[in-house]
Amino acid sequence: MPAPDTRLAVSTVIFALRPEPEATPSLWTPFVRRTRDPHLGQWALPGGWLPADEGLEDAASRTLAETTGLRPSYLEQLYTFGDVDRSPTGRVVSVVYWALLRTDEAQHAGEHENVRWFPAGDLPDLAFDHREIVDYALDRLRTKVEYSTIARSFLGDTFTLTELRHVHEAILGHPLDPANFRRSMTSSPDLVDTGQVLTGTPHRPPKLYSYRTPGSARP
Amino acid sequence: MPAPDTRLAVSTVIFALRPEPEATPSLWTPFVRRTRDPHLGQWALPGGWLPADEGLEDAASRTLAETTGLRPSYLEQLYTFGDVDRSPTGRVVSVVYWALLRTDEAQHAGEHENVRWFPAGDLPDLAFDHREIVDYALDRLRTKVEYSTIARSFLGDTFTLTELRHVHEAILGHPLDPANFRRSMTSSPDLVDTGQVLTGTPHRPPKLYSYRTPGSARP
Repeated sequence: MPAPDTRLAVSTVIFALRPEPEATPSLWTPFVRRTRDPHLGQWALPGGWLPADEGLEDAASRTLAETTGLRPSYLEQLYTFGDVDRSPTGRVVSVVYWALLRTDEAQHAGEHENVRWFPAGDLPDLAFDHREIVDYALDRLRTKVEYSTIARSFLGDTFTLTELRHVHEAILGHPLDPANFRRSMTSSPDLVDTGQVLTGTPHRPPKLYSYRTPGSARP
Repeated sequence: MPAPDTRLAVSTVIFALRPEPEATPSLWTPFVRRTRDPHLGQWALPGGWLPADEGLEDAASRTLAETTGLRPSYLEQLYTFGDVDRSPTGRVVSVVYWALLRTDEAQHAGEHENVRWFPAGDLPDLAFDHREIVDYALDRLRTKVEYSTIARSFLGDTFTLTELRHVHEAILGHPLDPANFRRSMTSSPDLVDTGQVLTGTPHRPPKLYSYRTPGSARP
């Protein structure tokens, strides 16, 4: 049995949609400013060391809440990063989770010291290999939005097709043709017309949809 | 910085198709008999401790080759298992990879002491939480075969539609309607008719197909 000379950390990549006045929403992600070496002062993913008596997801959830105040309903394991030289202070393997926030969850986060949100398309310099990790998460998100119901994680229980399209557009980073999107989505077996409409809107109120199966998106 | 009181291991779940005379092929997976405590004599996933100076995938590849003699072309990270009580001798976090073998790769494996292959549908008692890990891998494989080109990992560069259907059937564990399968696959943008046919067969030789994009399946 070898000496335990490798340390384990848990980090989380968080994505939320930020509503933009007069424009479609965009994808944002928060980072925490490091208050010690290495990489003092640089932005990094929220996270911390794994305590010996705490499960991986519990540690991700706890460190996330402690550093950012966020308690996302979607939290899944993303990937484990373990290159030999990824930290200058000895071998660190990081089990990385990702969290997708509904807009209401992101709004209730409040202000946290040393936390700042950045647009996913305009990231700052990040500590360690955290840029590579965020890029991996963005790739996964873009791939999953094409074949799974992961977009639901950003939405409430019911939503209009325009809201759903805005989620897809924010993730993909480009506009989609509204008619094609509508056709593709309404022919999907995953989506259900609730029979309700969005109230409080003038003229023709848009239909509200929901997903057929409750729970999270396919992993 | 906490004491590094948690140890890291790397393990691999391996799947291969075994041709069956007079029947469709079935999915098999190898285990290694443990030669020490804990769980002495029980079957376990191939793997070992992570050395401080070795990358995760390198460690998976090396321990796999050492214990089973296998060098699979498809080797990807699957998931990291880290429940607090999963080992009776202290906290162990296992980064688990999975390997999918082409039939020719599986045949060249040769005999290895303490290694035995079992049908995925009839597993022996396994050490630690390795049964849970194999079940997770099987679930992932069944989900992925529905929306990705992962079936290619079990096939050569070209294959007949019957061979491709047999891969799907072995993974899903039930027969598929040949006409529906043919219609679904030939309408897929991923699959290409190579213009060649399988030689050496009597009567109407079946067409050979390949995948449009080279490389591995979508992660």
